Amino acid sequence: MNNMDLSKKFEDYLHTLKWKNEPEGLYEAISYILQLGGKRIRPQLVLLSNQILNGNVNDAMPAAAAIELFHNFSLIHDDIMDNAPLRRGKKTVHQKFDTNTAILSGDAALIFCYEELLKLPADKVSAAIKLFNKTALEVCEGQQFDMLFENKSTVSVDDYLEMIRLKTAVLLGCALQLGAMLADANSIQQELMYEFGMQMGVAFQLQDDILDTFGNTETFGKQVGGDIIQNKKTFLLLKAFELANLEQQKVLADWLTKKEFDNVEKVEAVKNIFNQIGVRKIAETEMEIHFQKAIHAVHQQFINDEKKNRLIAFASALMKREK
Amino acid sequence: MNNMDLSKKFEDYLHTLKWKNEPEGLYEAISYILQLGGKRIRPQLVLLSNQILNGNVNDAMPAAAAIELFHNFSLIHDDIMDNAPLRRGKKTVHQKFDTNTAILSGDAALIFCYEELLKLPADKVSAAIKLFNKTALEVCEGQQFDMLFENKSTVSVDDYLEMIRLKTAVLLGCALQLGAMLADANSIQQELMYEFGMQMGVAFQLQDDILDTFGNTETFGKQVGGDIIQNKKTFLLLKAFELANLEQQKVLADWLTKKEFDNVEKVEAVKNIFNQIGVRKIAETEMEIHFQKAIHAVHQQFINDEKKNRLIAFASALMKREK
Repeated sequence: MNNMDLSKKFEDYLHTLKWKNEPEGLYEAISYILQLGGKRIRPQLVLLSNQILNGNVNDAMPAAAAIELFHNFSLIHDDIMDNAPLRRGKKTVHQKFDTNTAILSGDAALIFCYEELLKLPADKVSAAIKLFNKTALEVCEGQQFDMLFENKSTVSVDDYLEMIRLKTAVLLGCALQLGAMLADANSIQQELMYEFGMQMGVAFQLQDDILDTFGNTETFGKQVGGDIIQNKKTFLLLKAFELANLEQQKVLADWLTKKEFDNVEKVEAVKNIFNQIGVRKIAETEMEIHFQKAIHAVHQQFINDEKKNRLIAFASALMKREK
Repeated sequence: MNNMDLSKKFEDYLHTLKWKNEPEGLYEAISYILQLGGKRIRPQLVLLSNQILNGNVNDAMPAAAAIELFHNFSLIHDDIMDNAPLRRGKKTVHQKFDTNTAILSGDAALIFCYEELLKLPADKVSAAIKLFNKTALEVCEGQQFDMLFENKSTVSVDDYLEMIRLKTAVLLGCALQLGAMLADANSIQQELMYEFGMQMGVAFQLQDDILDTFGNTETFGKQVGGDIIQNKKTFLLLKAFELANLEQQKVLADWLTKKEFDNVEKVEAVKNIFNQIGVRKIAETEMEIHFQKAIHAVHQQFINDEKKNRLIAFASALMKREK
């Protein structure tokens, strides 16, 4: 099956999950966020990994659903914590319903992950839940670190990389490893799939940081400079602080503490410091290191070149690169 | 082992669970709420049921921990939703830490439930998680119904009984059934244990409603009349509305819509209507029906009288009755 067939099969599977009407709001909120769409990257990774390692994708389908449900659980709760009004251009769950319903719907979505994992072949259930739990706790840790960083004056670049590994990257690794596990792959194959996903996830998040500041509005799809306006502690900002001379540090600190400012002016000024220090290049190099680690993990798999290319093509598409 | 030994053994087990220090707050919040104490009724029920049906309580210990963790997860999230400042006389988690930490710590506590359930004997893991998931979703449903009822003008007594069954009672049933399941009890024994716990839970909640209005402050431990002051839709109030004549309905409705009032005066006036209608007696009868159903489920078990009496004694102690 090609990626499009896998994708279609997954949507069909998702539609077989039935959401009760009562109590009002509870399950409706889960169904609402699921139908907002999104790229379904994570379930795709479960199925792709599974197929490439000769699994039966029907067996892996509940794992794909569990991973997508978990992703949506984390979106529901993160959006509350971040006070986010919009998600994929539509109201977030706590805006569409209310905060209490969003807390409870997130909880219910998390429980449903385990309902899905119980549908896996009996001999796989425990190992799958074990990996899932480890990952789920790491994602919570990543989100907590992210929130703590907001109020912390000194965050190192290493702390930041560890935070994005936990918050974003491990779930991609988990998705790929689950697919491999369900294809009866051995532990080395499983770990290589995990490594592929995890490194790809870090590269992807770094790219997101770079594009937020240096992308162009048309292809990025979000407002460019949003991270700068909000003082978000991204790789770029943290690296800039690390390498700035005293004068540059002062200018940066001034912009970060200003309560009133013109958005365009602030973005230009901070970008100017970034350019002086050359943090874009440093971030691109860091991103490239992780991307190459991901590719390296693919090349270590005992699979034919066609299959390797399929994994690499997925990663390249995710990074919006020409292969 | 007597109840005190079981209790001690459970606390020892809880202490073996290690909570990481990082990220700050995340696991500390779980450890904080666990050490606030509480009566540990639910884990006690797991172990008691297990022992009475000749299980090895060591095998059941992780299930007891899972149930206690789940209870604490639900307290953390419910306290956010209810805006509760205090729990067991101490700050609630979202007050002690912050709301975002409380959301995430609750999530992590829920994930830890499954970590515990994975520690059960391999042949029991799936069945235990299945029962746990069903119960966990029902508890979420109960909480959602409870919140919906707050803004609903007409709630029937039957709706209310179903809500407390979901929100409170099924977890006691689940605890007892898990204990039985882990003792290799057959499905009838398991269901009778579930029924015992579930009916006891409904009776317990009804008693709580009655004591909140008719208890005396010294033995109740909370402010008497709190439910009336807050217009809480309890069994008493809903039943009173159901049976009130037009004049009584008007007086009740007046007190419920008053924005400013003297607490003592309101409690006296509403109690006065309750007494005219006789809702205390009706609530006590309803409570007694559920308590007797619980006792009946015990008597149907194929266990000796000493064991039956031990279960009944537990229920009686919970209801603060002389046996």
